Amino acid sequence: MTKGVTLQLSTLTEALCSELADLYDAEQQLVNALPKVAKAVDNSSLRAGIEAHLEETRNQVARLEQIFQMMGRKAERDQCEAMQGLLEEADEVIAASGDRQVKDAVLIGALQRVEHYEIAGYGTARAFAEQLDLDDVVDLLQESLDEESSADRKLTILAKGGLFSSGVNAQASHAGDPRL
Amino acid sequence: MTKGVTLQLSTLTEALCSELADLYDAEQQLVNALPKVAKAVDNSSLRAGIEAHLEETRNQVARLEQIFQMMGRKAERDQCEAMQGLLEEADEVIAASGDRQVKDAVLIGALQRVEHYEIAGYGTARAFAEQLDLDDVVDLLQESLDEESSADRKLTILAKGGLFSSGVNAQASHAGDPRL
Repeated sequence: MTKGVTLQLSTLTEALCSELADLYDAEQQLVNALPKVAKAVDNSSLRAGIEAHLEETRNQVARLEQIFQMMGRKAERDQCEAMQGLLEEADEVIAASGDRQVKDAVLIGALQRVEHYEIAGYGTARAFAEQLDLDDVVDLLQESLDEESSADRKLTILAKGGLFSSGVNAQASHAGDPRL
Repeated sequence: MTKGVTLQLSTLTEALCSELADLYDAEQQLVNALPKVAKAVDNSSLRAGIEAHLEETRNQVARLEQIFQMMGRKAERDQCEAMQGLLEEADEVIAASGDRQVKDAVLIGALQRVEHYEIAGYGTARAFAEQLDLDDVVDLLQESLDEESSADRKLTILAKGGLFSSGVNAQASHAGDPRL
């Protein structure tokens, strides 16, 4: 939301547009941030997954533009402070010192927070669109929501299987820590 | 994360402590913010739900302190930028002009983003605790995770049933908007 400007929420249509403008900004912040995240990770499957999700994210931006157009509105960005905070946290992990595989594991957690933000955002927008009987908008939002849920599941699989199964992290998990 | 301090992630224990410190700060930010949110909402069931979740959130802070203690560590807060951004967004909705029931609906969306942040955070912390075979820590994190998931579900029920079923929002949804 632009600083100093009071949000106007008189109708559910305004509520939906506010959600769309938030998501439109959030997705574009993510398009800018993901290449840096992909470059920073150590695990090649994780990197490939992030690159694939970058493509999906670009499509989600285009899908939001399509929705604005269907609603007869100009595509609008409202600064998404939450995504800014989420990406600051990812930056801190990238800048962290330590073991690259441990950092990958923590980065997965940061990316899952991002996915969950978007799941909640698309879920809310879809609920408003349903209430407004905007069936085509509901379908498009559902597509993005499904992609975000699937991205989250893939990250869980990578965290539980791909990264940890090698035992390298299990080794890293105890190194240098006398308390556990 | 404290500004200017490089995060240290050499071991999974450090990764877990980093997640716990993030959650510990996030939950305390939430304890401070929820009374204002409860006061701002129009719907009494929503207000009661927020007040009940405030109590749960206080318990979750205590549970995190218990976990730090079990791990032989001092309870530490790392500034959670994401929660800061999430709560700024909730503040903007509270400050918005318009229809109180539409504002309630958008506030539910803001609160669901908060719940999803915590679901991802507790999920990540639990995964690290599992990997470290810290069964008691896993159990405590699971309790909080279950509470967050349940809070999210209750908000969905309120959004879909309680708030919209009266038809007041359906009326508000078209008022003053010639485009739909």
